Amino acid sequence: ELFVLTYGALVAQLCKDYEKDEDVNTFLDRMGYGIGIRLIDDFLARSAVKKCRSYSETADMIAQVAFKMYLGVTPSVSCSNTTGNEFSLILDKNPLVDFVEELPAERASLCYCNLLCGVIRGALEMVHLAAEVTFLQDRLKGDAVTEIGITFLRKAED
Amino acid sequence: ELFVLTYGALVAQLCKDYEKDEDVNTFLDRMGYGIGIRLIDDFLARSAVKKCRSYSETADMIAQVAFKMYLGVTPSVSCSNTTGNEFSLILDKNPLVDFVEELPAERASLCYCNLLCGVIRGALEMVHLAAEVTFLQDRLKGDAVTEIGITFLRKAED
Repeated sequence: ELFVLTYGALVAQLCKDYEKDEDVNTFLDRMGYGIGIRLIDDFLARSAVKKCRSYSETADMIAQVAFKMYLGVTPSVSCSNTTGNEFSLILDKNPLVDFVEELPAERASLCYCNLLCGVIRGALEMVHLAAEVTFLQDRLKGDAVTEIGITFLRKAED
Repeated sequence: ELFVLTYGALVAQLCKDYEKDEDVNTFLDRMGYGIGIRLIDDFLARSAVKKCRSYSETADMIAQVAFKMYLGVTPSVSCSNTTGNEFSLILDKNPLVDFVEELPAERASLCYCNLLCGVIRGALEMVHLAAEVTFLQDRLKGDAVTEIGITFLRKAED
């Protein structure tokens, strides 16, 4: 669809303009952040969700409500540490890469969907949750699944 | 909506990364071209339009079918020269700028919606019509309307 196609054209053009994968990744992350800080209002209005009381609830909300609403898929969620502030969203299917076969060999460090990390980070920040969001696995790079890691940086009570 | 918001975040990030308006305009135009050369298949499939027999028909098709389908608006079309290869699409309302108040003073040469020019150019090229597509007027710059100029570069019979 139009959004996926537009995203593909964006990444392709960035790859032409920026030699380093890292610079493309940064651009996408920052642009995503700009989307996230605006999208949160739309999300809160459309989803009518209540305030999350824990990181675990927040992660579930991102996966089950936000991903479903905007990307039409529902990642599974797992908590990956004992302190309960690190979560993984695991995507069997990533609609953003529908038209992408595989990354060119010379673009091995490109995080094609890095925009998503920025969106999540920006949206969380607007509800006063600082987080690091990065790709841990990526099917485009030959991994079995696509995994987005979210690490909440402060206590949930803050 | 999501696409408009994403586009705004894209232009904002480009303005941070590129000092010259011209470079931002070029990026948007090229990215649009990348969209256009892919979007044409979707357009032809969904619209089921017949082959256009003249530039005039082609311009009408872009305005009345393509703009309506993808942007939800219908520009008016006028032919602006006697040889019949220059057309203007005139938009009273441009959905891509819904969230944009006005351009910052230091970005006076920015063609905010230059992506559209690239999309039109790319799509036309795929149906073997070479064209120059540029913004002639822009409400974001204080003009009364937004006007996109399309100049077909070869004879319609070719």
